[in-house]
Amino acid sequence: MSRPRLRSVTVIGCGLIGTSLALRLSRSGIAVSLADPDPAAVALGAGRGAGAPLAPDAPPADLVVVATPPSAVVDVLYEAQARGLGRAYTDVAAAKGLIWEEAVLRGCDLRGYVPGHPMAGRGLSGTAAAEPGLFAGRPWILCPGPSVHPEAAAAVEELVSLCGAVAHTMPPTAHDEAVATVSHTPMLVAVALAAQLADAAPDVLALAGGGLRDTTRIAASDPGLWSDILTHNAPAVAASVERVAADLVLMASALRDGGDTCSVSVGGLLLQGHRGRAALLDATGSRNPGDARCRTPV
Amino acid sequence: MSRPRLRSVTVIGCGLIGTSLALRLSRSGIAVSLADPDPAAVALGAGRGAGAPLAPDAPPADLVVVATPPSAVVDVLYEAQARGLGRAYTDVAAAKGLIWEEAVLRGCDLRGYVPGHPMAGRGLSGTAAAEPGLFAGRPWILCPGPSVHPEAAAAVEELVSLCGAVAHTMPPTAHDEAVATVSHTPMLVAVALAAQLADAAPDVLALAGGGLRDTTRIAASDPGLWSDILTHNAPAVAASVERVAADLVLMASALRDGGDTCSVSVGGLLLQGHRGRAALLDATGSRNPGDARCRTPV
Repeated sequence: MSRPRLRSVTVIGCGLIGTSLALRLSRSGIAVSLADPDPAAVALGAGRGAGAPLAPDAPPADLVVVATPPSAVVDVLYEAQARGLGRAYTDVAAAKGLIWEEAVLRGCDLRGYVPGHPMAGRGLSGTAAAEPGLFAGRPWILCPGPSVHPEAAAAVEELVSLCGAVAHTMPPTAHDEAVATVSHTPMLVAVALAAQLADAAPDVLALAGGGLRDTTRIAASDPGLWSDILTHNAPAVAASVERVAADLVLMASALRDGGDTCSVSVGGLLLQGHRGRAALLDATGSRNPGDARCRTPV
Repeated sequence: MSRPRLRSVTVIGCGLIGTSLALRLSRSGIAVSLADPDPAAVALGAGRGAGAPLAPDAPPADLVVVATPPSAVVDVLYEAQARGLGRAYTDVAAAKGLIWEEAVLRGCDLRGYVPGHPMAGRGLSGTAAAEPGLFAGRPWILCPGPSVHPEAAAAVEELVSLCGAVAHTMPPTAHDEAVATVSHTPMLVAVALAAQLADAAPDVLALAGGGLRDTTRIAASDPGLWSDILTHNAPAVAASVERVAADLVLMASALRDGGDTCSVSVGGLLLQGHRGRAALLDATGSRNPGDARCRTPV
């Protein structure tokens, strides 16, 4: 089966993700059109070579990428389909189940829409932080519905391939559970830890080493975007965060009780943490062979 | 006031910290003697040039460094003083208040003992992981008691200086509160997060990026040593961990409730986490100017 090569892509949303993939596609010779509620973001993206501003009378693109925060995806998708902006559509939101339900309720054309989530980011956000290599080697989750048209699926798979990412296909619920574990819960835990530092004395914070810096690094991410993401994956994140909180409450209680029971409880969680860390490195380690050996003063 | 230069130091405990400072001192021309319950650790340290095995008839050293886990410090200190191994004594344990109380009760000579804690470490532990530059630029907390002899204080300050570290003097309770904030709570939180990964499916873990790797990195630390450290700083760690757990429970509850209240609660903690992270970088950032800009895919 031959599949059409992408020739034109419209990116709606010129933030970190949208502009990064626009840069990547432009460098592959694809005609990229850019749209964003903020004209300055479009101008900055265009100035960086990510594409040209979307013309009002542009013909339908081979693919439209909705690169907005989760809460805007369905509105933007619906409107783009109503205007006939493309022959296929995808998004890049970090939560999938709720968006799919909203898209069904709203009456979006689900044959032409393949929900997507590139698992990539940076400590920085916005158009200026975009880089074309952002997705290289990273997972890109696709959650196509049962009625999706093969040509739409092929167009989105070609997007993933052009970005150098690795496609993983799974249902929206499986996506949401998985990212709650590997991304959303770590974010909220890092944030809760970092929040304790807001009122700490500077001379206390000055004692911190690489351990605290590493553990709180992702807490510097965009609060507005992450509030949107977390509330769009609320049930899965809540369940996972409650498990972490329950273990912490148990540890605090054991530490207050003291004695042998304390050592057994604390030692037990430390060992389980060791196993979890080892499982993570086993699953991802080949991509980062130096990880376990890097210097981490605590 | 002239102070004597260190000429001889005995290090009891050839783990990461003891061997690292022995290597540093040996390279400064100081005669270092090594002792450890494990003869293989002494032999490995000696073979790496950290010093010579402690001779049974050695004259008293200018300084004895007790580099054992917290639970062994007072026994080792008491015995070393009873044997007259040195003219001054320090330790390197990461908890100070309980050890001080135990040293008082045991009848250790408090005039010759300056409790210490070099705030340095690595992802690895043990003799083989030692490196002489481990303490360069790092804080080294000293908690001298009211009866300490000036010569003992001077000897320990010279040790800190020779290791290239920066001395911070504070009471044991202030030390314990500070390290609960910047080191012990982050450790337990990272461990609780990593523990959730122990039974996760490998194909889920394979989706993880740098965010989860950074957030759980310190969970790979030595479980036995850290159980000892955390139980020796139990009240301060319990209080701090309870605050993190309470925020996580609040977030989970808000996520389950949904609606506008949820966005306000989650957004509020994300903003406070942002402030905490900024406060940490403000307090430590000059030492790590690239920190905020390093790539952290989530």
